[in-house]
Amino acid sequence: MPSEFRLQRTVEFCETDMAGIMHFSNFFRWMEACEAGFYRSLDLPLISFVPGNVVGWPRVTASCTYKEPLRFNETAEVRLLIKELRTRAVIYVFQFRKLDAAGTVLPPVVAQGEIAAVCVTADASGKMVAQPIPAAVRAKLEPAPASAYTV
Amino acid sequence: MPSEFRLQRTVEFCETDMAGIMHFSNFFRWMEACEAGFYRSLDLPLISFVPGNVVGWPRVTASCTYKEPLRFNETAEVRLLIKELRTRAVIYVFQFRKLDAAGTVLPPVVAQGEIAAVCVTADASGKMVAQPIPAAVRAKLEPAPASAYTV
Amino acid sequence: MPSEFRLQRTVEFCETDMAGIMHFSNFFRWMEACEAGFYRSLDLPLISFVPGNVVGWPRVTASCTYKEPLRFNETAEVRLLIKELRTRAVIYVFQFRKLDAAGTVLPPVVAQGEIAAVCVTADASGKMVAQPIPAAVRAKLEPAPASAYTV
Amino acid sequence: MPSEFRLQRTVEFCETDMAGIMHFSNFFRWMEACEAGFYRSLDLPLISFVPGNVVGWPRVTASCTYKEPLRFNETAEVRLLIKELRTRAVIYVFQFRKLDAAGTVLPPVVAQGEIAAVCVTADASGKMVAQPIPAAVRAKLEPAPASAYTV
Repeated sequence: MPSEFRLQRTVEFCETDMAGIMHFSNFFRWMEACEAGFYRSLDLPLISFVPGNVVGWPRVTASCTYKEPLRFNETAEVRLLIKELRTRAVIYVFQFRKLDAAGTVLPPVVAQGEIAAVCVTADASGKMVAQPIPAAVRAKLEPAPASAYTV
Repeated sequence: MPSEFRLQRTVEFCETDMAGIMHFSNFFRWMEACEAGFYRSLDLPLISFVPGNVVGWPRVTASCTYKEPLRFNETAEVRLLIKELRTRAVIYVFQFRKLDAAGTVLPPVVAQGEIAAVCVTADASGKMVAQPIPAAVRAKLEPAPASAYTV
Repeated sequence: MPSEFRLQRTVEFCETDMAGIMHFSNFFRWMEACEAGFYRSLDLPLISFVPGNVVGWPRVTASCTYKEPLRFNETAEVRLLIKELRTRAVIYVFQFRKLDAAGTVLPPVVAQGEIAAVCVTADASGKMVAQPIPAAVRAKLEPAPASAYTV
Repeated sequence: MPSEFRLQRTVEFCETDMAGIMHFSNFFRWMEACEAGFYRSLDLPLISFVPGNVVGWPRVTASCTYKEPLRFNETAEVRLLIKELRTRAVIYVFQFRKLDAAGTVLPPVVAQGEIAAVCVTADASGKMVAQPIPAAVRAKLEPAPASAYTV
C-alpha cells in the first residue's frame, strides 16, 4: 500500500512570469500532476464520469510555502506523501526539491504544499456530494509517517 | 444582427513570461474570452450540456500574427468580427489594439488572429458530431464586411 | 489609506476543467489580479525593474479554502483586505463572493484565500533580497480590521 | 545537424476544459515545450539575458489545425520539424500523435501546428531587435525535407 509518489518535471517557458521565475500558481498545478501520476501508478481513475460510479476529488483547501524560486529549464522532483486518510477525504503533502545537473535530487525543500481533497460522487440530480472513499481506492492508500514529510 | 463585438482587458502578471511580455498562447485565450462575451451579449450559450440540445464549438483551426508585444498592466481591445458563416462553422477574426492612458483605442493592430469553430452536438453515444448551426443561433449572427478587418 | 479593494470578474472557458468548474489553481490567479488592480488604484508599481529602484513581491505562502465552485460565465467579486503589514511583508486576505443576475454581490463567501508577499529589491549582483517596504508604498497601505474578513 | 525532435507528454487535469478535452490554447504550450526540449538537446539557450549576448525568439505567427481532441491522461508525441531556416527566423512544424497503451506512437496526426520565431537581441536601450541567427546556433539547425511533415 503506497503512501508516496515522486514525479520529476522541468520548468517550461510558459510557466515563468516577468519576474523570471515559475509563477506561484503553477506549483499547485505540479502538485496535481504528481497526484495524477500517483493515481495512474495505482491504476485508479482520478476522475470518473461512469454513471453509478461517478468519482471526483474537488479540493477543500490548498496551500504552499515558497522558500526558493524555480527557474526556466530547472528540473525538480515533486514528492507526494499521504498525510491523512479520512473517511471522505485525503490530505496530501507535496515537497519540491531541485535536481543538480547530474540528475541527483538535492536535499533542500524549495517549496512545500498541502492539498485536502474530498471524495465526491453525483447524486440523482447530478450534484456533487461527498461520499466515503470507495473501498477499492482506500485499499491502495496508506498514510505516510509524519517523519517522512516534516522538514 | 451583430457581426462584431469588442472586449477590453488588462494584461495580468501571470499572463507574462520571463521575456517580460504576454505569452503568445494567451492571445488565444483572449480571443476566446471575447467570443464568450459576444455570446453573452447575444444571450446565447457558448456551450450547453442540456440533453437533446447539447451544443459546443470545438476549434478546427486557430492562428495569430504578432506585431507588437503586450506588457503587464497594458490594456488592449479585442475586436471580434465574423469573417464567414458556414452551415456548420463560424470563422472569426480577432484584432488586438492597445489603449492609451486616456482609454482611447490606438489604431495599430498589434496582433490579429483567426479561429474556425465547428458547431457540434452529441450523438446517442455521447460522441461529438458536427451539426448545422441552430436556427436560433444563426439568426443572431451576420458576417462582417471584409473591409472591417482587412488591415 | 485604503485597506481593501474589490474586483469583479467572470469565469472564462479556459479557466474551467473537465469537472466543469473553475480549476482550483485559478483562484490564486484571481487573487493576484485583484492585488494588481489594488496597486493600479494606488498608482504604485507592483513590479519595477528601474535600476536602483527594483521592487517585487514574491510570495512566501499562499493558501485557499474552497466552499463552493465557480462555473463558466459566473461573475464573482474578489475582495482584497490587508490583514497584516510587516516591515518587509504584506499579508492579504481575499474573499470570493458570487454575483446574482442583477449584479448584486451575494453574502456567502465561496472561497477565501491568503497570500503573504515579501518586498524585495535586487542587490548588486541582481539577486533578490528582502527590503523594508518603501515609505511611499507603506504610506498608502493600512491593515483592515479583523472584523472585516472574519467569516 | 538535427532537423527534428520528439517529446512525449501526458495531458494534465488542469489542461482540460469543461468540454472534457485539452484546451486548444495548450497545444501551443506543448509546441513550445517541444522547442525547449530541442534546444536543451542541442545545448543551446532558448533565451539568454547575458549582456552583449541577449537572445530571444519571439513568435511572429503561430497556428494549429485540430483533427482529434486529446483527453486527460492520454499521452501524445509532439514532433518538431524545422520547415524553414531564414537569416533571422526559424519556422517550425509540430505534429501531434497519440500513443497507444503499449507506448507505440499511432500514425494519425491529431493536430498539426506551425510557429515562426524571429531571433532577437537587445539594442543599447534594451529594446528587442531582430538579428541574424548566431552562427553557433545556425550550425546546429537544418531544415527537414518537406516529405517529413506533409501529411
